[in-house]
Amino acid sequence: MNYDQIMQLALERGFYFQSCEVYADAQAGFWEYGPSGVSLKNKFVELWRRELVRRDRMMEIDGSQIMSKSVFEASGHLTSFADPIVGCEKCKSIFRADRLIADATSIVVPESADLSEFDRTISEKNIVCLKCKSKLGKARKFNMMFKVGIGPESEPAYLRPETCQSIFVDFPRLFKTMRGKLPFTIAQIGKSFRNEISPRQSLLRLREFYQAEIEVFCNPNKLDGIEKFSEVENTEIRVMINDGIKSMTCKQALESEILPNKLVAYYLGLLVEFYQKTGIDVKKSRFRKLADKEKAFYASVAFDFEVETTVGWLELVACNYRSDYDLKSHASISKEKFEVLDDDVKVLPHVFELSMGIDRSLYTILEHSFREDKDNDRVVLSLKPYLAPIHVGILSLVKKDGLAEKTEEIFSKLRTKYDTFLDHSGAIGRRYRRLDEVGAPLAVTVDHQTLQDNTVTVRMRDSMNQERIKISDLDSYLAKEIAYP
Amino acid sequence: MNYDQIMQLALERGFYFQSCEVYADAQAGFWEYGPSGVSLKNKFVELWRRELVRRDRMMEIDGSQIMSKSVFEASGHLTSFADPIVGCEKCKSIFRADRLIADATSIVVPESADLSEFDRTISEKNIVCLKCKSKLGKARKFNMMFKVGIGPESEPAYLRPETCQSIFVDFPRLFKTMRGKLPFTIAQIGKSFRNEISPRQSLLRLREFYQAEIEVFCNPNKLDGIEKFSEVENTEIRVMINDGIKSMTCKQALESEILPNKLVAYYLGLLVEFYQKTGIDVKKSRFRKLADKEKAFYASVAFDFEVETTVGWLELVACNYRSDYDLKSHASISKEKFEVLDDDVKVLPHVFELSMGIDRSLYTILEHSFREDKDNDRVVLSLKPYLAPIHVGILSLVKKDGLAEKTEEIFSKLRTKYDTFLDHSGAIGRRYRRLDEVGAPLAVTVDHQTLQDNTVTVRMRDSMNQERIKISDLDSYLAKEIAYP
Repeated sequence: MNYDQIMQLALERGFYFQSCEVYADAQAGFWEYGPSGVSLKNKFVELWRRELVRRDRMMEIDGSQIMSKSVFEASGHLTSFADPIVGCEKCKSIFRADRLIADATSIVVPESADLSEFDRTISEKNIVCLKCKSKLGKARKFNMMFKVGIGPESEPAYLRPETCQSIFVDFPRLFKTMRGKLPFTIAQIGKSFRNEISPRQSLLRLREFYQAEIEVFCNPNKLDGIEKFSEVENTEIRVMINDGIKSMTCKQALESEILPNKLVAYYLGLLVEFYQKTGIDVKKSRFRKLADKEKAFYASVAFDFEVETTVGWLELVACNYRSDYDLKSHASISKEKFEVLDDDVKVLPHVFELSMGIDRSLYTILEHSFREDKDNDRVVLSLKPYLAPIHVGILSLVKKDGLAEKTEEIFSKLRTKYDTFLDHSGAIGRRYRRLDEVGAPLAVTVDHQTLQDNTVTVRMRDSMNQERIKISDLDSYLAKEIAYP
Repeated sequence: MNYDQIMQLALERGFYFQSCEVYADAQAGFWEYGPSGVSLKNKFVELWRRELVRRDRMMEIDGSQIMSKSVFEASGHLTSFADPIVGCEKCKSIFRADRLIADATSIVVPESADLSEFDRTISEKNIVCLKCKSKLGKARKFNMMFKVGIGPESEPAYLRPETCQSIFVDFPRLFKTMRGKLPFTIAQIGKSFRNEISPRQSLLRLREFYQAEIEVFCNPNKLDGIEKFSEVENTEIRVMINDGIKSMTCKQALESEILPNKLVAYYLGLLVEFYQKTGIDVKKSRFRKLADKEKAFYASVAFDFEVETTVGWLELVACNYRSDYDLKSHASISKEKFEVLDDDVKVLPHVFELSMGIDRSLYTILEHSFREDKDNDRVVLSLKPYLAPIHVGILSLVKKDGLAEKTEEIFSKLRTKYDTFLDHSGAIGRRYRRLDEVGAPLAVTVDHQTLQDNTVTVRMRDSMNQERIKISDLDSYLAKEIAYP
């Protein structure tokens, strides 16, 4: 299924839709999750918590989205977090310079290139305004942070462009109060904000978006001292080498020096094990080492975890070795101590991060799970049962003869524990199809036999098989079927 | 335990702390949740989802925090969401006028009063600048929304001051795609932002805060047609009447016309049932009907759900009957249809809302759960087991003799499913005390007997009783002990 089909599913079945869509001044790059989207997202987050945060004993925090100006002086975002833009001298339209050039000529000028490089290419290739064909002005930098004014004096502060800045700033307190030991890992899920020039493709390039970031604070002299590496050494990962993709174990990637150390290899392995459980087809994934010009300004080594979709390879996670870039800078500007003791030696920790885009991950899960079942004239969202927005439909075969009441009785017992969908009306086949489309793995149907022997039909989404279950066994049956792995 | 003791607990045990605290330009009114706070908050949210969203078949959404300008033209926030402020003519300090007057004279001028009323009181009572004792200027209005500029043209948009605006704007799509029927209820958890003049008391008055809002869209002619009212008719609520608090059932409150209709009574009952399960002492709660001058500008009838703490009565939930104020206004400005069919009759729904402050609720849970146990020389956070940041401590009695390895083996089996805390070091008594203080209901200890018979000690936080359990039974034992009600 392609992007447009997923978009149709999203709009019609309450996964996501544009924010403020009833208004003419609705801004691009802002989307909302509807009921199905919220439920899928919550379950994805719970899986992330189980398979990464809890499994690896990470500390999870939830920091403010508005942060002080000093934070971004230290982080470098005030000076370096800018996109190259060019404006039309006549109609004043503004374009992102690298995208404009790529669209007009298929020449790739990296976004971090010198401004003169954009000007030269635009002039050499005679690129003009996309809208009115007039001459373009000089390229300039546009800072992508959203500024807000605090209090009546309007003191400058910013919406964070990445959640990890909260983690860096909070590191000294957390390490101390949580009795930290290196490597010490802090995770956070939350919103970040980037004033993109040209947001597009719904969840794929947003101005307000969800990140799940993991920052591993480590002693740079002990990157190969991670014992828990053995847990993932045989985990298969796929790595891009010379334009080809090679599958190998974490151990092989380490031994062949494709990955620089055990710490990095361990977390990349953990990440792939997590994505396997989301239902994303990891056979369509790859780690791609970024060239110097592609890397973010704070990264010394960077691997993107990318997954193939119908709109191309999507970067779902940026894995950056940030070295001591952040802590050194925060220490210097705040005058606070960021060094810690590791086996009685003072160390300024280095940071390795896994910066996950949640919205893109959810899109990819939908695309990899949605399929046409032509034999049965239906479309099915074959989500992992533990990620399904609705765990179980609860249906009365017909509304009359006391079946509706019996159905509501069953619903009452299950409603707080499971995500249920109570439905009395319409042909039963059509109700099953609707549940298939929203990914509900199970449907319970109450029929006349139910009134006689207190059993119900349970229908499985993927196989369409049905079996009869005692009402008294339903709770334990459902609990088992939708359990996390 | 009082506010200062809770604050100490929060700082020392990773519940919450000030944002950007390492920087001199850290702004007041921004706080972060540490690992214990995140875990408590997540579990509180899950309880809210179970007992309100799922139980009542609400639709949950997650909308953008940045919303277009038109939204707040329609909602009235651009013109009406302002605090009265006065500035010092000499030192330029700015104060919230109502608070300044209350602090200086204990006269209460409601924040929604005419500006002239503040000027008159300040002049009559000779109130001067709190800082430099100079003359104060005229009172003026300060709009509390944070403005942001979108794109290179910096088009005006705002951080939402209440989550419900997303719900109102999304109502037409949700009602249609989710096959809605009145009453139709939409819920949302998320951040809201208010540029308070004088934020204070950590989680109690924030500039960036979490709301859990529930908006019930209903037919104003059918407010007494809610059959499910019978589910809560015998639920006890406490209502403030003539300065006294009276306990009564929802049915009695309805019959004595203290509550205006079944719909309102049903949701207030549901709310109290929810708070009972949080561990807040609902015998210290009350619904207080607001006087006209106290109500928000959009409310036609308003009840605050307040709970008594050591810092006074805290408003945890505002229950507002917003009538058709919001939908009418959004319909008029957007030109979109907000009317829906109810039994084939066109209706512009009225809205009743439960607007919950999550941060304040968490504070109150902590205050009502924290106690000194002098007999046993300890402090205990007696949280409901399902809300505890750590479900179970996993401890080795000593590190040697293979006990540490056995402990880690047990930890490995439990770590993804439960919130565990693995701890090998220090006197066992001190480790229990630390778990008591962070509210862990259970501690599993591995000792020498474990190596012989594969049993462990389980210690209960509240009773301090211990019992021996087979390792193979631990999972089902824990699942039962920490299960939601």
